[in-house]
Amino acid sequence: MNPKSKPKIIIVGAGFGGLFATKGLIRAHADITLIDQQNYHLFQPLLYQVATAGLAPSDIAWPIRGILSKQKNVTVLLDSVNGVDLNTQEVITPQRHLAFDYLILATGARHAYFGHESWEQYAPGLKSIDDATSIRQRILMAFEKAEMTHDEIERQRLLTFVVVGAGPTGVELAGTIAELASRTLAADFRNIDSRSARVILLEAGPRVLPAMPTELTVYAEKSLTNLGVEVRLGSAVTHCDESGVMIGDEHLPSATVLWAAGVAASPAAQWLEANADRAGRVIVKADLSVPDHPNVFVIGDTAAVKDSNGKPVPGIAPAAKQQGRYVSDLLKALIEGRPKLGEFKYKHSGNLATIGRKSAVIELPFIRLTGFFAWWVWGIAHVYFLIGVHSPLLVGLSWLRQYVTYGRGSRLITGRRFNKDDV
Amino acid sequence: MNPKSKPKIIIVGAGFGGLFATKGLIRAHADITLIDQQNYHLFQPLLYQVATAGLAPSDIAWPIRGILSKQKNVTVLLDSVNGVDLNTQEVITPQRHLAFDYLILATGARHAYFGHESWEQYAPGLKSIDDATSIRQRILMAFEKAEMTHDEIERQRLLTFVVVGAGPTGVELAGTIAELASRTLAADFRNIDSRSARVILLEAGPRVLPAMPTELTVYAEKSLTNLGVEVRLGSAVTHCDESGVMIGDEHLPSATVLWAAGVAASPAAQWLEANADRAGRVIVKADLSVPDHPNVFVIGDTAAVKDSNGKPVPGIAPAAKQQGRYVSDLLKALIEGRPKLGEFKYKHSGNLATIGRKSAVIELPFIRLTGFFAWWVWGIAHVYFLIGVHSPLLVGLSWLRQYVTYGRGSRLITGRRFNKDDV
Repeated sequence: MNPKSKPKIIIVGAGFGGLFATKGLIRAHADITLIDQQNYHLFQPLLYQVATAGLAPSDIAWPIRGILSKQKNVTVLLDSVNGVDLNTQEVITPQRHLAFDYLILATGARHAYFGHESWEQYAPGLKSIDDATSIRQRILMAFEKAEMTHDEIERQRLLTFVVVGAGPTGVELAGTIAELASRTLAADFRNIDSRSARVILLEAGPRVLPAMPTELTVYAEKSLTNLGVEVRLGSAVTHCDESGVMIGDEHLPSATVLWAAGVAASPAAQWLEANADRAGRVIVKADLSVPDHPNVFVIGDTAAVKDSNGKPVPGIAPAAKQQGRYVSDLLKALIEGRPKLGEFKYKHSGNLATIGRKSAVIELPFIRLTGFFAWWVWGIAHVYFLIGVHSPLLVGLSWLRQYVTYGRGSRLITGRRFNKDDV
Repeated sequence: MNPKSKPKIIIVGAGFGGLFATKGLIRAHADITLIDQQNYHLFQPLLYQVATAGLAPSDIAWPIRGILSKQKNVTVLLDSVNGVDLNTQEVITPQRHLAFDYLILATGARHAYFGHESWEQYAPGLKSIDDATSIRQRILMAFEKAEMTHDEIERQRLLTFVVVGAGPTGVELAGTIAELASRTLAADFRNIDSRSARVILLEAGPRVLPAMPTELTVYAEKSLTNLGVEVRLGSAVTHCDESGVMIGDEHLPSATVLWAAGVAASPAAQWLEANADRAGRVIVKADLSVPDHPNVFVIGDTAAVKDSNGKPVPGIAPAAKQQGRYVSDLLKALIEGRPKLGEFKYKHSGNLATIGRKSAVIELPFIRLTGFFAWWVWGIAHVYFLIGVHSPLLVGLSWLRQYVTYGRGSRLITGRRFNKDDV
């Protein structure tokens, strides 16, 4: 390629990885195309708040075009991607082939059902705004139906909420549903006592938050129990249907089962015919490029990367951001003919999870925090992350509004055609 | 009925009429059941803002249970109503019969297609949150598709927005879409210039805002034209399909046609087998009761009521609120054995419409306002109305946030499964 010509860079996915790669290229002499299936960038760490009616979708999602309107070297394309042709160096969408000189795949991950994909309809996962609003509808409709039924057994089933998987998402969902039932909705119904709802957190492994140190795990489990969540460890789900879940021989009747277990990467590895790990993540080189394809990069949740200790880099937002920034720096150096950058080095900034509205556990490189103070650190850290993308005033207002309206503002059941058999 | 026993009051519909009737009965010695198909009360005057991506659904809709959680004499039922049995004095829902001593029907209105109900799929109206989010999706997707197409004629069709009907909703929709295209989206696209979009407001009658004095009509028309809206008077739509609309022999190609013409009342008149006017509104007595049924009341957009000059009371929020309050006072007097209240007297507080973000026309009993000052009066009036339902702090925050995020916050395309033939 002539170094004077403008290279074509295609970035697929506008999550943290793709967006930070794009923003990192703001001063690059290049034609960048950013492709996403949605027209918004999603702040996924707070998605559980939309699913539990604490925040509105537009509090945590922003139009990609708006974020990038001033970055004139980027064209945003609302489109899906079907594959990549490495011979012709093209990205294939349903209606066109787009040529690239450099390609960055940041296509993320979804939940894994470990070969039981049919369970998804009974136990939806939480990855998109539409997932979140549909889970919100399920949770709120369960209370509505419980208020209306005259069948005591059915009422108990409707008031039993099962969360499968005790990673951060599962812990945050379970804690927030418990608070919704015991606090937010406590005065709303006349025939049921929402506080009698059961929230059960199932975990196949021996402890909650397995990525965290044991000390924080123990604290998180105690906090969940204090909120009224029944934590059941060593409990793998063996079957799922509309009546509830099976754990071995035990049937747990529940109208609302939410899936927060396992991660399956996007089909990027298939598109590239590249080697993948068990979760389907592309095994990339130390510069995040695909073996034998130095101009194709895979970043974020769909890449298998190792840190300097040989441990896998976790599938969390800060990791994706760092990888996006790294690849944008590497491409800028390449385009400008500067010496090639060194290897990608992951800097672990910590793990965190909230448990309800008053507690959190945080693991930072030099300190571990728990309790109400940790919750505030968590809040401030999130404001800080958000300000990376948005103006401080907007973020401050959104948060002030969230704090004031918490559990009141977004309890809308939308997108539902009224159905005779519904209630 | 024994005056000591607790009468059963059923209120159908939690719009302005139904909600204010319910709140007016807060101290009534009665068992009140409020039935609505949705779990939220909707501030309909701002619905056009959701449809045009200025506000989020939860900015203008609030859970009914939350509003009434402290009013212990009310049970809220999320259910649809199929009819009323006046012989047994029961309200019929899909799964149950509910007995009443007093009944208030506040079931509202939808848009009328004047016998062309099949047009609704091509030219949706705006009455619910789901209408608004689906119109928002249509408008935003039209720009997205225009950005992607290589067909110049199709691009023009995609960038032509037609609003049918120049009442307040039509005027507000057209003005806001014009601003969206000329301001909010102006920097977002690379292949199209969103400012080249055409917004056409069609009105069958001789002027816009026909309920307003001519002077305000003229001003509104000029303001619309200044925003770039093409106002076409005396233009009745004779056909609607996916290609656009017909006005007599003229075909107007458009991918986004919105319907803001005509009003059809709910089926309350059929349920009651009562006399109705041409729009289907129940013709009620001076105390808003149904002839021969002194314990059954119809209020709001589904009632035909005359003011003291013999003119029909308009189908606007303040009228519905006044009727809701009146019926609650009347019922309280009845229940407490006090003398019967006088007739309902409508107090006209004014008509208003905004044109974009900087102009409005307002007709008050003693004064007419136009321009930017009117826009602020409109804003303050709406904050005042909202405070009737919500805490001032919440309303203030919502509005501050709206003013800061205007045209940025809510441009989300949600509820859309990605479709191969889509773009």
